[in-house]
Amino acid sequence: MRQLEERIITDGKVLPGGVLKVGSFLNHCIDTKLLGDMAAEIASLYKDAGVTKILTIEASGIAIAAAAGMALGVPVVFAKKHRTTNVEGSVYMTIIHSFTHNEDYHVIVQRDCLDASDKILIIDDFLANGSALRGLIDLVSQSGAEVAGVAVCVEKCFQPGGDEFRAKGIRVDALASIESMTDDGRITFRS
Amino acid sequence: MRQLEERIITDGKVLPGGVLKVGSFLNHCIDTKLLGDMAAEIASLYKDAGVTKILTIEASGIAIAAAAGMALGVPVVFAKKHRTTNVEGSVYMTIIHSFTHNEDYHVIVQRDCLDASDKILIIDDFLANGSALRGLIDLVSQSGAEVAGVAVCVEKCFQPGGDEFRAKGIRVDALASIESMTDDGRITFRS
Repeated sequence: MRQLEERIITDGKVLPGGVLKVGSFLNHCIDTKLLGDMAAEIASLYKDAGVTKILTIEASGIAIAAAAGMALGVPVVFAKKHRTTNVEGSVYMTIIHSFTHNEDYHVIVQRDCLDASDKILIIDDFLANGSALRGLIDLVSQSGAEVAGVAVCVEKCFQPGGDEFRAKGIRVDALASIESMTDDGRITFRS
Repeated sequence: MRQLEERIITDGKVLPGGVLKVGSFLNHCIDTKLLGDMAAEIASLYKDAGVTKILTIEASGIAIAAAAGMALGVPVVFAKKHRTTNVEGSVYMTIIHSFTHNEDYHVIVQRDCLDASDKILIIDDFLANGSALRGLIDLVSQSGAEVAGVAVCVEKCFQPGGDEFRAKGIRVDALASIESMTDDGRITFRS
């Protein structure tokens, strides 16, 4: 999606170690015109995929998931980070490793939010190592629902998450696919 | 907003101690048709208020803030919960007490997300004690921006937050205003 790529070039900040900061328009301050356009693009990609619900994880996936849910006309579920393993039997739970904070989170979804008859589109702002999305796929799997696909705003193609899911036959769409970033800030997109 | 009140009656769950669970349609699984209608209502209430940005706090305020931001055509900033007081000078920080978890959070917004010339609409899903919103008002105040108002999906009028802000001259709008709830599940709305 050219609009997003151009915005990343203009306003993204590359930090050493493959870190891309897009807080000025994507995941801290959100440009809602861009948000609506990204949601329309995701809705267009998945309009014939039979999606019944969108699943994301708090916090930075919620805005794009909510916008895409409005565009597709389906409900949005967001998985919640949980402090303890001490949860009721009424939830699905998985563990997600955060590379940013180098720790494990327990992540939960109430069982009555996902149904075996659902076809789930998983959405997040970023796909890099794939840790968060692997956890969301696990939650869908526990519920017996089907994964329609994974849609993200930005994929860092030089990290292994996206290719790991594609190798498993999961559809993965990224609105901007970053092939490489150099420490001095040059970004190359996969065409 | 009658649609939201009816939905709270139908699908909300009252737990002892004044707790209202609306996770099946508002803040865990989100009905995106209702979300769009609530956002349109907030946009209608604030269309002439000169709002330049919306401010909310992760996680459950993000969906309604993003939807309202799209409806009003303004950017959305979400304040982030932070682990430590050890932050750079590039942020505004405040402390918010969570009555749910009985602990204090440090909450931050990057300084370049809020500007002294901004007129900020603060949005959240719930207003009860007002702790989260008091923190957001503090962040706006630190930036020198003006608070245009506070809009929430649900106000528990039997808790003191909303009236405290109104007494200070802050505009407060709730799409559903709960006057009282009984432990056996009867809900009365303020007309």
